[in-house]
Amino acid sequence: MKKYQEMTREELLAEQQSLQAEFDKIKAKGLSLDMSRGKPGTEQLELAMPMLDVVNSKTVLKSENGTDLRNYGILDGIPEAKRLIASMIDVDPEMILVYGNSSLNSMYDQVARAYYEGICGHTPWCKLEKVKFLCPVPGYDRHFAITEHFGIEMINIDMNDDGPLMDQVEEAVKDPSVKGIWCVPKYSNPEGVVYSDETVRRFAALKPAAEDFRIFWDNAYVVHHLYEDEQAEILNIFDEAKKYGNEDMIFEFCSTSKVSFPGSGIAGVAASKKNLEDIKSQLTYQTIGFDKINQYRHVAFFKDRAGIDAHMMKQAAIIRPKFEMLNDLLSEEIAPRGIGNWKKPLGGYFISFEALQGCAKEIIAKCKEAGVTMTGAGSPFPYKKDPKDSVIRIAPTYPSLEELTEAAKVFVTVVRLVSCEKMLAQ
Amino acid sequence: MKKYQEMTREELLAEQQSLQAEFDKIKAKGLSLDMSRGKPGTEQLELAMPMLDVVNSKTVLKSENGTDLRNYGILDGIPEAKRLIASMIDVDPEMILVYGNSSLNSMYDQVARAYYEGICGHTPWCKLEKVKFLCPVPGYDRHFAITEHFGIEMINIDMNDDGPLMDQVEEAVKDPSVKGIWCVPKYSNPEGVVYSDETVRRFAALKPAAEDFRIFWDNAYVVHHLYEDEQAEILNIFDEAKKYGNEDMIFEFCSTSKVSFPGSGIAGVAASKKNLEDIKSQLTYQTIGFDKINQYRHVAFFKDRAGIDAHMMKQAAIIRPKFEMLNDLLSEEIAPRGIGNWKKPLGGYFISFEALQGCAKEIIAKCKEAGVTMTGAGSPFPYKKDPKDSVIRIAPTYPSLEELTEAAKVFVTVVRLVSCEKMLAQ
Repeated sequence: MKKYQEMTREELLAEQQSLQAEFDKIKAKGLSLDMSRGKPGTEQLELAMPMLDVVNSKTVLKSENGTDLRNYGILDGIPEAKRLIASMIDVDPEMILVYGNSSLNSMYDQVARAYYEGICGHTPWCKLEKVKFLCPVPGYDRHFAITEHFGIEMINIDMNDDGPLMDQVEEAVKDPSVKGIWCVPKYSNPEGVVYSDETVRRFAALKPAAEDFRIFWDNAYVVHHLYEDEQAEILNIFDEAKKYGNEDMIFEFCSTSKVSFPGSGIAGVAASKKNLEDIKSQLTYQTIGFDKINQYRHVAFFKDRAGIDAHMMKQAAIIRPKFEMLNDLLSEEIAPRGIGNWKKPLGGYFISFEALQGCAKEIIAKCKEAGVTMTGAGSPFPYKKDPKDSVIRIAPTYPSLEELTEAAKVFVTVVRLVSCEKMLAQ
Repeated sequence: MKKYQEMTREELLAEQQSLQAEFDKIKAKGLSLDMSRGKPGTEQLELAMPMLDVVNSKTVLKSENGTDLRNYGILDGIPEAKRLIASMIDVDPEMILVYGNSSLNSMYDQVARAYYEGICGHTPWCKLEKVKFLCPVPGYDRHFAITEHFGIEMINIDMNDDGPLMDQVEEAVKDPSVKGIWCVPKYSNPEGVVYSDETVRRFAALKPAAEDFRIFWDNAYVVHHLYEDEQAEILNIFDEAKKYGNEDMIFEFCSTSKVSFPGSGIAGVAASKKNLEDIKSQLTYQTIGFDKINQYRHVAFFKDRAGIDAHMMKQAAIIRPKFEMLNDLLSEEIAPRGIGNWKKPLGGYFISFEALQGCAKEIIAKCKEAGVTMTGAGSPFPYKKDPKDSVIRIAPTYPSLEELTEAAKVFVTVVRLVSCEKMLAQ
């Protein structure tokens, strides 16, 4: 197999013709496939069905602290649920606020809170001329959507295999209008990057100009390993931050959305005592409390971190073949032709494919033409602007392995075709 | 029995002495009773326990529209839940947005949305010099806490047996900085007032100066009748508003918090198409969707409005004796002495007691001294300022009938004692 870069124009033309014919054949099939959805597949959801039996009409719905779980009360979560969430991200349960059904909601509310109230007595961001956020790219579109929604200027930070480039971060935080950064430190969305120890340490040691600068540490995939024997671990950001007196600089987020049921899970925020008090002083106006029965349901089903880990290994067994199939296909069809890069993730929900520069939009459009929906071009970037038009987020979990395999084959054909055309046009 | 107002000073002194002796005896008992909590009692919660069986590991968790209830998706609620909520407040299901576990949360978010985003393209309230809200009093402390939290100036509106005094409301809305009003139209908190047809019509016909003026119609007690044969009904505000082209002026709120389980219920917002689109255009950044499994659980258990009504009659059977005991005791001990007024509610969660002017704080303090917790003085008023220091909110549902009876007797003794002292001091 020859790299496209090494092909003659004639070879490229022949390749293009044959790929175009193949593409036309695929189109004629009228497929309807989808690799865009970062959702668990049905088999994964089935694993959590027994959770719906652990709370029933015979259950004594009392918290260990005596609270009737069926009545009003408890703003920050029942102690059992605090412990469960704390065990996921390895912090003291005292640092946990158990939120509602969605960590996205807790992150949105946190930005909203900072925007109209200010953090810990600082000027509300809405009263400032300019507020900026750092956005490691590629990243999670819904993070960027929140900050864009609040009119916050987003600044791209490049990523490498160790996480965000800390030189860029350290430089950027000297600007007092830079108020935060979005991070997915473990199995990052979409690349699956695991922040190195040095990266975490440098985050923990940051000396931002803005006192109300906060790291939004979205540990969304903390327990989402693909392998039993090869699991990434990252340093505990709070432990590191403590060494620099920087505990107040961090909000950590996680949830069981992709552990139990998306939409019916529980979310958690971890923060310093000072930040928690600040959050609760506002939250007490917003709600009397979140769903304590559902908190208890999660505790009764998973019991502890070991229970969650065992459950996640069952999920891994289901989705690992999907990731591996994709990795193998890209290794066979794309790598040798020199027309794309990706990292083989050890966890998380995505594979991030980097096409030749200027090809992502066209690949996604042609996939659509062939009946395969991909995540929108530019999605993993602020303002949906991929500066190189090259990143495509692939979400392997939702389709069956069979459907995914069919979709992946179409994708690979399209990547080849578009790359070919691109090179011919140069 | 003589009215205190008709007693001689000597008679009052004798009365005071005997009451003081009684009060000292009560204090010696070291009671610990509570009439402050607007929460369902345990027996009421027991009624909903079978709801925890209708969804289990064998349930097919698919919405009628095909959505897997266990996965991401559906911002505004599953169609079945929209219908159930719509049936509670008698509107078209298309007008419903099913919110999370708390209508308070949905009201807070609505004010927050108006504050930092603006309603339907209008200037966000945070950008305005002055924003005012009308607050019918006595009213719900958590409503007032929200508007106070956002720095919104609150203006008292007096109530009578027909609801808020509409002359005051109509006059006040001529001020363009008046942006909203809190209403609990049926079995109002705390008086149990039911808005008359004329009141609802005049609300529906309001011509406020501010285009983004909204009526926050918190129909919290819409199905919370105390009697089978004597149930208040109010006019449908949306039907009336339609006659004046005023549908966009209303946000209606309700929930199942005091139907199923507080904290584990579902809430609903009803609004015009234009308002719903406006809400959803923001909400889509805040969450992917609320807990659909819990939405379905409510539908599977209650089925429809008839199911809810039947359930609420079982609740009524439990709490009615508590309301009636209080009503009887006040009728026997307070009314003939001319030292307090209240309305006998047909539904809702409270009895609002109006003591002699200047006595509420002292009554509440003395109850505390005797081991009986009452809702804080001033609570039913903006800024917790009861202009006459006379209103005391009584919450009969949470204690057992036995405890409530004991607490009520203490309350009555204290009301007599404080009234006596007040009259002697004059």
